[in-house]
Order: sequence, then C-alpha cells, then structure tokens
Amino acid sequence: MNRVILLASRPHGKPSAKDFKFEDIEMPTAKAGEVLLKTVYVSVDPYLRGRMSDAKSYVAPFELNKPMNSALIAEVTASEHPDFEVGEFVTAGLDWKLFQTSDGHGLTKVDPSVSLTAYLGVLGMTGLTALMGLQEIGKPQEGETLVVSGAAGAVGSIVGQIGKIMGCKVIGIAGSDEKTMALKSKFGFDEAINYKSTDNMQEAIAAAAGDGVDIYFDNVGGDISDAVIFNMNKYGRIAICGAISSYNDTEASKGPRLQPYILKNSMLMQGFIVSNYAKKFPEGVKQLSEWLKAGKLQYAETIVEGFDQIPQAFMDLFEGKNEGKMVVKI
Amino acid sequence: MNRVILLASRPHGKPSAKDFKFEDIEMPTAKAGEVLLKTVYVSVDPYLRGRMSDAKSYVAPFELNKPMNSALIAEVTASEHPDFEVGEFVTAGLDWKLFQTSDGHGLTKVDPSVSLTAYLGVLGMTGLTALMGLQEIGKPQEGETLVVSGAAGAVGSIVGQIGKIMGCKVIGIAGSDEKTMALKSKFGFDEAINYKSTDNMQEAIAAAAGDGVDIYFDNVGGDISDAVIFNMNKYGRIAICGAISSYNDTEASKGPRLQPYILKNSMLMQGFIVSNYAKKFPEGVKQLSEWLKAGKLQYAETIVEGFDQIPQAFMDLFEGKNEGKMVVKI
Repeated sequence: MNRVILLASRPHGKPSAKDFKFEDIEMPTAKAGEVLLKTVYVSVDPYLRGRMSDAKSYVAPFELNKPMNSALIAEVTASEHPDFEVGEFVTAGLDWKLFQTSDGHGLTKVDPSVSLTAYLGVLGMTGLTALMGLQEIGKPQEGETLVVSGAAGAVGSIVGQIGKIMGCKVIGIAGSDEKTMALKSKFGFDEAINYKSTDNMQEAIAAAAGDGVDIYFDNVGGDISDAVIFNMNKYGRIAICGAISSYNDTEASKGPRLQPYILKNSMLMQGFIVSNYAKKFPEGVKQLSEWLKAGKLQYAETIVEGFDQIPQAFMDLFEGKNEGKMVVKI
Repeated sequence: MNRVILLASRPHGKPSAKDFKFEDIEMPTAKAGEVLLKTVYVSVDPYLRGRMSDAKSYVAPFELNKPMNSALIAEVTASEHPDFEVGEFVTAGLDWKLFQTSDGHGLTKVDPSVSLTAYLGVLGMTGLTALMGLQEIGKPQEGETLVVSGAAGAVGSIVGQIGKIMGCKVIGIAGSDEKTMALKSKFGFDEAINYKSTDNMQEAIAAAAGDGVDIYFDNVGGDISDAVIFNMNKYGRIAICGAISSYNDTEASKGPRLQPYILKNSMLMQGFIVSNYAKKFPEGVKQLSEWLKAGKLQYAETIVEGFDQIPQAFMDLFEGKNEGKMVVKI
C-alpha cells in the first residue's frame, strides 16, 4: 500500500488539518534508471508554511492538490540505477509519500552509522542555516554578546552553541521553563529567558546582556525582536532567519519603526535563506561534522511516529511543541 | 562686536525659535599659537536636531546654554599661529559665533578659487555621505535601479548623480513639483515622484521602477520608505542615511513590520554615519573632486543671509524649504 499527503487548501492564518488531504495511491515500481525509495524520516519545518501560500516568497509555493514535500531520509528498496544499491539510505527534498521512485537526481547518500536524523538537522539544512547566518551576517567576535530567539528550536539551539564555540556570551529566548533549562544545561547557553513568563522583555534582556547586545539571530520577529533590538549596541548585526510569529498573519502586523534606531547605531539587518550560501555548504558540513565528532554540538530532536502524523507535527511547530528538530519517523 | 547662538532648551518635537538664544559677547583676540577666525558660511543640517536632544545618539548632544556648532567656513583675520596666514580660509566644526579663536586643531584649509560653499557640501560631509553610503552599503551594479528619498536635499541630489555615474536607473522622491523638475533637468534623475501630490506611492514607485528596486538610499523613513521597501527585489540593499520624518517624533512611530519582507527577499538594511568610513575620506574627496571638475556633479545650494537667520534656516530644513545644501552666509 502507498499513501500521499496533498495540499488540499491554502491556509488563511494558522494551517489546520483540513488543509491537508491523504490519498491511497498505487505502489510504484522502479523503471530502468530509477530507484524505489521507502520514506524513513520526514523533516517538518516552519518555512513550509510560506510554501503553502501563493504569495511571492523565496521558494515556489506548493500547488493545490499536489503532494507536499520537504527533506526526507529514505531507504533504497529496489534499484534499476547503477549508482544506488538496495539498503542504501539517501536524503533529498521529496514528496510526502510512503514510497516514491527517483531517477537519482538530487539524492545524497547518507551514512547510517551516523544517526540518520542528523542529516535532517545538525548536518543538514538546519545546521547549515545556523552556521551560515551566524558566520556570514552575525560575524561574531570573541567577547561579544549574542541573543538567539526561538533558541530551543532546531536552528536556534545550534546557533547558540556555535556562538559559544566562537567565544560569545550567548542568551537564548524560548517559551517554557523546560526549554530555558535545556538551553542552559544541555546546550551551554549563558542565560535563557522564558518570554511567556517575563513581563518586561526589554529589561530582562538588558539585565542578561549586561553590556548590550552585539548580534541578534532572529527566528521569530514581532515583539520579542523589538525587545532585543532596543538593546543593541553600535554596529550591531541582526541576522533574520525566520519570522515564525508572523507566518500565520493575514496582514502585515505593525510595530515600532526600527530605522531611526538602526541609523543611530549604525546597525545592520539582513535576511537570508541558507541556499544563498550554497557555495559554502561543503566547508560548512565539514566544520559541523568536526564539531559534532568533538562533542561540541549537542542537538535535540522531537520525533513523532507515523506517516499520518506529519500534518499534526507540522502544525505543532507553531505551538512551540518541539524541542529542537521536529522529525516524523515512518 | 561679537555674537553667539546658544542652545536655550531641548526641543520637544519640532525645534522652535525659543530653543535658541542670542548673546552679545566679547571680541576675542588670538593669543600665541592661535588664530582669530571670522565666520563666513555656516552649514545647517538635519542631523543637528539629534544633538539638540539628550537621547543616546551617534554624536554627543549639545549642552544647554552652550554654543551650538556645525561645519563652518571661516576666514583667518589674525594669526599668532605659524601654519596660518591672515586671509586664508579654513573649514571645521566650530561654534555658531561671529568670531572665535582656535589653536589650529581640526582646521582644514580650503581653496577660495573653488566655491567656498562646496566645502560644506559636495566636497565636504554632504558629498562624502552620499558617496560612502551608496558605495559601501548600496554597492550599485550597472543596470540596477536606485531609489533616493529626500532626493532634492543636499545628500540626495548627489546620491542620484553618483548612481547615474555608476550606471543605475535613478528614481528620486521629493516634496514639490519644483524639486522633481530639478531632479530630472538639473541632476539627471531618470524619474522623479512628488510624494505630496501622489496618492499611492507604492504603485507610483512600481511604475517608475518597472522592474523593482535594487537599492534604496533612505533620507526620510516613515511611510515613504515603506512604499519603496515593498517594491524591492531579492538581495535589495537599503542604506539608511537619515530619518528626517522621525527626528521630531516624541515617541517611536509605528509602521508595518519589515522583517518578514527583508527575510523573504534576503535584503540588507544598514544604518550609517559618514564618520564610520573616515579612513576612506581622502580617496572619496579625490573622487568627488574629479567628478566635480569633469562637470559630472551638479549641486544645489539654498543660501540664506545673516547670522541671526541661522536658527530659522535650520528650522526650515524640516519644512523642506531648501533645495540642496542649506547654507547661511554671514
């Protein structure tokens, strides 16, 4: 039996179960030059929300009544392709299907002796996003102060650890005491602030930073970002990686105009998507692997089981139910 | 007789005449190692508004009941200093006084055979601000589209001309038909938009740009900037040079949050003050002088006469009464 998840409707605001449609489909067979892939792990990520809308964005929107897709780990279960053998594992951006065929284009083999899910996280786009944004925009200097929002998320938890490796004081912002405890005990952040139980975020950040903020790695946007930005020092850098607080907005939300403040402090704010830095991926993966092997990078995963749970796991991202990378095991 | 203008009170909102105080003071004499300077031209600039407040900013605030100061051109009328002769002209940041002494520190001699006021404008901080912001942040590429707000102002009119020299399509935004005509006929802008007579700025900019905006040199902030920014292309760059629309704000104004848009388009927004690039001033002045001599840079001046008119000339900046550099001739 094979099964697929289609985009049934474009969400208005938060995505809900009715935006997804399950269909039982035929089991494909590998033709000459093809492999048959069995999905093993599915990555669900906040940026997929953007692709569910048809507004102009950095990646093409999903089509209605067509399969959703994201980064997967799959096992080769049949091969008519000279480069792939049955039992090998690959990663690629693939459809949300139990089984699918591929001509091999875009498939990257992964080493199952390392954790397979690491290739969806710390050694995949998640780790590269953290490294590229921090390195290319944040440009951390030893002794500087780095604030990370969405710090307990997949990207945020890696950003903070890289910040520590690079000699920064690191402050994380997250939405529960469980998360802030993990930031300090598991990921080595210097300070962690639970924004849900903090009345005055601007003062809390000022107190945690002590001497202002030099770098802000922003995964969330909105009020939390305002509170960080109003604590920034001259020549501060803001890397905008995500804006999860606004992904479900139906119109542009309003906030204080930041330009006068960016002007006064000669600050830099830059948005990015990891693919902007594709040329640097090989050295990035090498660096991340070295840190991982040296025990310098811890990563958290929230693993949900079952193909039918993919939409719910995705929706749970917007409720902050994950710690670290959200992955669905099939 | 000598005379000085003091900061009488810190303005709340727009500066007004009562914030300034005139005093008749003693005529100084040059002691050994000093020169006596007679003020010839005084530069008034929007950034001085920031120095009249005591809020944290990029330059130290003026002190209450102390002289205002800005860039001046002065003539040496007595010299006890080996490096200066009577009849020479100098420029420096100096007090708003008819006469003052100096030990020579910070004085730069200027060539009176070139227009003296050019040293307050196109060959001074004004020209350098235009060049540095455009070159270091805007990074124009041939064929790109540049939008300049406050385009008929001292900095803006030079930015647009440098953009043309660098091969950009240049669109200026200004506040009167007289100004927009000057942008096209005198300064060679491709398009000019009068924001006061335009209902939908976002559509007007889209139409003028044709293929989106790559670089935005922002002198004004506020609604006008929103309209430009929502027309920007992927990898767009925003150089924030000024925010004249907000200088007299008594609290932070609100506007649409820009981060989701900056993220989607991998855009860069950076604030600057010209002194960040002080190391590049010598080559910058050389470049500007070459363009000026080659007839490639036109500049506009609004020259007001009379020492007592300095405060009014400054206040008129916020009413948009100047075309190009506002200078007071003594």
